[in-house]
Amino acid sequence: MDKLQGIIPPVITPLTQNGDIDPTGLSKLLNHLNSGGVHGLFILGTTGEGPALGMERQKEMIRQTMRLKAGALPVLVGISAAALEDSFTLAEFAYEQGADALVCAPPCYFLPGEDELMDYYRTVAANVRLPLFLYNMPSMTKVLMKPSLVLRLAEIPNIRGYKDSSGNMCDLHEILLGLKNRNDFSIFVGPEELLAEAVLFGADGGVAGGANLNPELFVAMYNAAQNGDVMEMRRLQAAIYRQRRLYSIGRYQSSIIKGIKSALSLKGICEDVMATPFHHFLSPERQQVDNLLQTMS
Amino acid sequence: MDKLQGIIPPVITPLTQNGDIDPTGLSKLLNHLNSGGVHGLFILGTTGEGPALGMERQKEMIRQTMRLKAGALPVLVGISAAALEDSFTLAEFAYEQGADALVCAPPCYFLPGEDELMDYYRTVAANVRLPLFLYNMPSMTKVLMKPSLVLRLAEIPNIRGYKDSSGNMCDLHEILLGLKNRNDFSIFVGPEELLAEAVLFGADGGVAGGANLNPELFVAMYNAAQNGDVMEMRRLQAAIYRQRRLYSIGRYQSSIIKGIKSALSLKGICEDVMATPFHHFLSPERQQVDNLLQTMS
Amino acid sequence: MDKLQGIIPPVITPLTQNGDIDPTGLSKLLNHLNSGGVHGLFILGTTGEGPALGMERQKEMIRQTMRLKAGALPVLVGISAAALEDSFTLAEFAYEQGADALVCAPPCYFLPGEDELMDYYRTVAANVRLPLFLYNMPSMTKVLMKPSLVLRLAEIPNIRGYKDSSGNMCDLHEILLGLKNRNDFSIFVGPEELLAEAVLFGADGGVAGGANLNPELFVAMYNAAQNGDVMEMRRLQAAIYRQRRLYSIGRYQSSIIKGIKSALSLKGICEDVMATPFHHFLSPERQQVDNLLQTMS
Amino acid sequence: MDKLQGIIPPVITPLTQNGDIDPTGLSKLLNHLNSGGVHGLFILGTTGEGPALGMERQKEMIRQTMRLKAGALPVLVGISAAALEDSFTLAEFAYEQGADALVCAPPCYFLPGEDELMDYYRTVAANVRLPLFLYNMPSMTKVLMKPSLVLRLAEIPNIRGYKDSSGNMCDLHEILLGLKNRNDFSIFVGPEELLAEAVLFGADGGVAGGANLNPELFVAMYNAAQNGDVMEMRRLQAAIYRQRRLYSIGRYQSSIIKGIKSALSLKGICEDVMATPFHHFLSPERQQVDNLLQTMS
Repeated sequence: MDKLQGIIPPVITPLTQNGDIDPTGLSKLLNHLNSGGVHGLFILGTTGEGPALGMERQKEMIRQTMRLKAGALPVLVGISAAALEDSFTLAEFAYEQGADALVCAPPCYFLPGEDELMDYYRTVAANVRLPLFLYNMPSMTKVLMKPSLVLRLAEIPNIRGYKDSSGNMCDLHEILLGLKNRNDFSIFVGPEELLAEAVLFGADGGVAGGANLNPELFVAMYNAAQNGDVMEMRRLQAAIYRQRRLYSIGRYQSSIIKGIKSALSLKGICEDVMATPFHHFLSPERQQVDNLLQTMS
Repeated sequence: MDKLQGIIPPVITPLTQNGDIDPTGLSKLLNHLNSGGVHGLFILGTTGEGPALGMERQKEMIRQTMRLKAGALPVLVGISAAALEDSFTLAEFAYEQGADALVCAPPCYFLPGEDELMDYYRTVAANVRLPLFLYNMPSMTKVLMKPSLVLRLAEIPNIRGYKDSSGNMCDLHEILLGLKNRNDFSIFVGPEELLAEAVLFGADGGVAGGANLNPELFVAMYNAAQNGDVMEMRRLQAAIYRQRRLYSIGRYQSSIIKGIKSALSLKGICEDVMATPFHHFLSPERQQVDNLLQTMS
Repeated sequence: MDKLQGIIPPVITPLTQNGDIDPTGLSKLLNHLNSGGVHGLFILGTTGEGPALGMERQKEMIRQTMRLKAGALPVLVGISAAALEDSFTLAEFAYEQGADALVCAPPCYFLPGEDELMDYYRTVAANVRLPLFLYNMPSMTKVLMKPSLVLRLAEIPNIRGYKDSSGNMCDLHEILLGLKNRNDFSIFVGPEELLAEAVLFGADGGVAGGANLNPELFVAMYNAAQNGDVMEMRRLQAAIYRQRRLYSIGRYQSSIIKGIKSALSLKGICEDVMATPFHHFLSPERQQVDNLLQTMS
Repeated sequence: MDKLQGIIPPVITPLTQNGDIDPTGLSKLLNHLNSGGVHGLFILGTTGEGPALGMERQKEMIRQTMRLKAGALPVLVGISAAALEDSFTLAEFAYEQGADALVCAPPCYFLPGEDELMDYYRTVAANVRLPLFLYNMPSMTKVLMKPSLVLRLAEIPNIRGYKDSSGNMCDLHEILLGLKNRNDFSIFVGPEELLAEAVLFGADGGVAGGANLNPELFVAMYNAAQNGDVMEMRRLQAAIYRQRRLYSIGRYQSSIIKGIKSALSLKGICEDVMATPFHHFLSPERQQVDNLLQTMS
């Protein structure tokens, strides 16, 4: 695998009304993303509701993505789970289906300490047949991977990248500086509102949830940051924040995914069905999403 | 099912060196617990490393427990998972194997809000064929179920009990008072050091991790609290804290389970193998456990 | 000073409409408390809004309390502050006015580490002329004093007691057992809903905010717990929780003090004026307080 | 006052061995800062140990700073306190001494809710005679001021600026966009490692603790970000992180201030005496600071 760079959307998982993977919706979504110029796909992450889908639907999402994706876009597959054996099952299936890399957050029920987490990633990295990305997602896993730990983890063989969804730009700067000589290691930033500065200071790209909706916007920001085009970065940052008003509709942590799915549904790309325990937006929130889409178009 | 009462240990899961369920160790452990006078068994909880075991080992633990348990001890089965479909699979298997009740914590990756958690438990309770216990375990799930929410959840049909592992005695008092007229609802306290006062103020019993090691101690405390025997409660509380020094050996959240397994291994009951990502105590910690066992015997 | 025991209310600070200490209200309040059988007074604690009052009003509250208090009730004075020199000024003034002991929480702006906190308390204890009580109040100071630290702090000369407002009953058990042979050291529990079990397991008494309103209730609970009268403890615990509904009126952390002051105002004891930045309850909340008082009388 | 812009160091407070304000050290420090090209001075902030100094030393620090400062550098004075009356006393003194603006964090003991904080700042802003800056410092005050709240607070008359020490760059972007049309309002970022991107996206400057040591470095970064000079920003960011290794010496939150004072002492500018409850670095840490200074020079 060449070094990954650019915008790799955390692809939402289109579901039918009875909760199955929806190949039609997925096909439209992948075409939409491909047309938008993204540089890869990350499925079964947090935005993809991976851990809530269960094993069979996760496998089906891998299978359909590999079947439907256009062109040579690399595919990264989330394998985060509470049980290591589930991560291995997903990793092996992703390998067999031709995926390009794996992304693994710390286990989600028991909270490992730092040494335990080193052991965990050593075990995962040594037993999978694809390059592995670290996934720092403290809002879900409750484990904050500090820069000093990330630098240690980055030395494990087969660990080839890092996705930082901590939202902590101070930590990310430290990691970027610490790994700047690693040509074989990719660093991606999760929060889309930090994409510009992360890339400006050396990150390889972003895993922007909002790219599900508007991939061009984030590809443009990636390019602007790569080129150091400050005026363009400011203009696009304002556009990103306009779109982010979507996330303030509804309540609870789940409203970001609900908002994206609701907007994709209004755009005719896929249904807005959520995996349990979450429900899609009902009429009042959906109307707000619609109003917002009008102002942005 | 009659109303559950008494000491229901959160049974540790004995594993062989290659990580399989160890029927020999489990048999010895269940006999040890039964001889110690416990009133039921809770398998696949946090102390049982449930979510870290993966589906197949969890099923095997259910199967072996139902086969090996002595007498008529009721068996509660943990079904907590990141994906609802995994909880359903475990619940159905537990039902088929003859278990008595299910225990379910909030899902562990995505954090539901209060209304979402109501929906979640409504869905679980309506789709399982055994009575369901709520499981408040914020140190693992990061969801704190407040008393007002527990009182609302307790009204869902088929929810028949509550296990409180929050360690928040103020909240537990409020729940005990709010549900004191419910003859069909059992309230258990998790932290063993709160067993005495919880039972004294109306709880039905305790799910004491330390009962894996010394079931008689916790059964005696349950009886003392039931009888309002204050002098005995004070004496036993000191004994419980002497045993709890076990948990200060080692580091990280996992040291409690490691300590119990290490002590059971030294007592010849089962191996001290841990499920990934954790490792058993090595020589220095194991020696400390041994020294402590000497002082307690 | 003899060893302190019993109910020591954290006296609220009666203020006039323009924010001065109100001697008339304070006199009524102290008579009310004395008639209710309390065993001491703690002024300028959290419930007393100490740190928000500023130096001059704190001095005035000390002066008036020493002047107005009935009989030989011991008086404890809170000296918590962001700056050590303010703590010393308060401590010296309290000594000059004849107070009996001092109560000091960790400094509230900079968060000291464990060793820094040891130094802090050594400095305070060595430079004041009255016995010093530790004050564990993590919800305000953000410093959680763990049992191991409290046991170390308890060995500092002139530290003679500990007030635990952490709400963590597991920690308090550990401290009670660790200090049970100290005849010269008093342990008090803050949260009134933990008074019963704390005293039952060896605490010397409670600093119950609700005793401002209904001192007899908490004195009765203290006696019941001292006597190990379990039936009476259960009955009184329910009464305490009935009164505690007062604290669910209004919003924010400050609603507890607002509720107590509002109720005291309705009972004609003192005004409900709050120190900045807080305001007293307005009509809707005040009506709720009134309704609740009706149901309790 | 013209709109403030540029690098405004949070000036450390030089103390003599017996803890008094040290005019000689302060004079050297202010000359050092002035020579380094800073655009203003912020005294009695967190880095200045303001709340730990007590009233008299805070007044003395104001007096000496106004006396010793070179040229027309504007001076901002921290007035954060647990008691509003202390904030007013400081504010009035700062006004009398000729300071230019005030900076006020939420009160540090009682945690106000959002509406209470609105009231608080309305009261402060209306009763002081200098422009007021909001100070978001959740690591000390435990109150996180969210963007929506900051935007509301920014509308209060006489509130003329905002210092963001939250370290949350996502929130800061939202505030920068929300207030970008306010020509009379200054936005400063606290964490020095976020200075570049904050200014690039519209912040007016930074309050960088490290500027006490090396003002030129931060002035250069401010200029680079103002000019959109990306290559220079990357180079300077690496230099800032090299200096930041200073903060990883020692333990606890206080080690940042200790490190800066230790380094200033080694450079012969002032003593490294800390306000209680903190102590200066002893020999091993001081040696590490010295080694680090060697590598940076």
